[in-house]
Amino acid sequence: MAFYEAYGLKGWQSLEKTITYINEKYPEIFTIADAKRGDIGNTSAMYAKAFLQDFNFDSITVAPYMGKDSVEPFLAYENKFAILLALTSNEGAFDFQTKNVDGEALHKKVIKTSKTWKNSQNLMYVVGATKAEYFTEIRKIVPNSFLLVPGVGAQGGSLQEVCKYGMNDDIGLLINSSRGIIYASNENDFAEKAREESLKMQQEMKLIIETI
Amino acid sequence: MAFYEAYGLKGWQSLEKTITYINEKYPEIFTIADAKRGDIGNTSAMYAKAFLQDFNFDSITVAPYMGKDSVEPFLAYENKFAILLALTSNEGAFDFQTKNVDGEALHKKVIKTSKTWKNSQNLMYVVGATKAEYFTEIRKIVPNSFLLVPGVGAQGGSLQEVCKYGMNDDIGLLINSSRGIIYASNENDFAEKAREESLKMQQEMKLIIETI
Repeated sequence: MAFYEAYGLKGWQSLEKTITYINEKYPEIFTIADAKRGDIGNTSAMYAKAFLQDFNFDSITVAPYMGKDSVEPFLAYENKFAILLALTSNEGAFDFQTKNVDGEALHKKVIKTSKTWKNSQNLMYVVGATKAEYFTEIRKIVPNSFLLVPGVGAQGGSLQEVCKYGMNDDIGLLINSSRGIIYASNENDFAEKAREESLKMQQEMKLIIETI
Repeated sequence: MAFYEAYGLKGWQSLEKTITYINEKYPEIFTIADAKRGDIGNTSAMYAKAFLQDFNFDSITVAPYMGKDSVEPFLAYENKFAILLALTSNEGAFDFQTKNVDGEALHKKVIKTSKTWKNSQNLMYVVGATKAEYFTEIRKIVPNSFLLVPGVGAQGGSLQEVCKYGMNDDIGLLINSSRGIIYASNENDFAEKAREESLKMQQEMKLIIETI
């Protein structure tokens, strides 16, 4: 749903229709508003209300740059999650996220600091599949947290590697493929092709879980 | 416009109506979409299109955490600006933005790095009025850039201090008060009260510019 604004009013209506449909028909599906918000507390509180309460998403992705008071409003909803950007899947992640802050990489600093925030049990973290070698260190800081893992699929991350270094006893990984699925086709066979791509990935995950 | 989603479809329509009205009636007014976006390049490009082209804002605030490829798409529009979060006005700014990265504060690292990005002449920076003592150092890195300065008004920053340390030969400051103005009244006299608050600030700025 990230850039629904690019489709104007129609984009807004599609977002509303889609989340309402999922919540009504498949309430067991965990929904993520990949909105990457983060603002002064007052504004973050309004975003949290919009996405977690009004749209009733189960979670929302949140950017950490503005710190504690920009993130805590997203943690105030019971059984809802803020998924904090830690180490993202894109190339630009190396600009700041891996830079050394007081002796450790910024993304590790972000994760450690966020654990001290109010209702931090409602936090999950974004860690890109394209950076599988970082999972071991991250798992030392948050052994039990769920990690949202983009970058498998279109961005080229290895599912096998991610599972090897990132899985915990509860699995602990939410593997995400967006473009690999939503751009599977732009013809009339979209639903079918998208389903195929989703199934392919689900099968791959199943195999890995069974063999690890 | 930051949290129009909190008002549902009505919020969306108000945003559209407001920016259309300003662009039609007062095209000379510099408009800022305070959206604090920043995502993988593909998605940032869609946000840039939505806000800078479709809505036709003059600028958009952008979060730097995801680095170069998350910001550059916002710099690709001629005579449009990406206003990068550098040192924000909130308390949480001290969580990461002022932390030491390779010998300098993260926000300084962000500003320096951003100057190497494509079309960096289309960058401005957010520097909070509540942190006036940091302006001198920031001005050494970007003497000519415009700085968007929130935090005067409801958040308690001093306009006098900001001008003292932040002004350059072109003034170089966009002073922002949001809540001080939009929450001036919630009665029928809103338009009048909001105008009064705006004028008060404009007068204060005028006085400072004339005396500095």
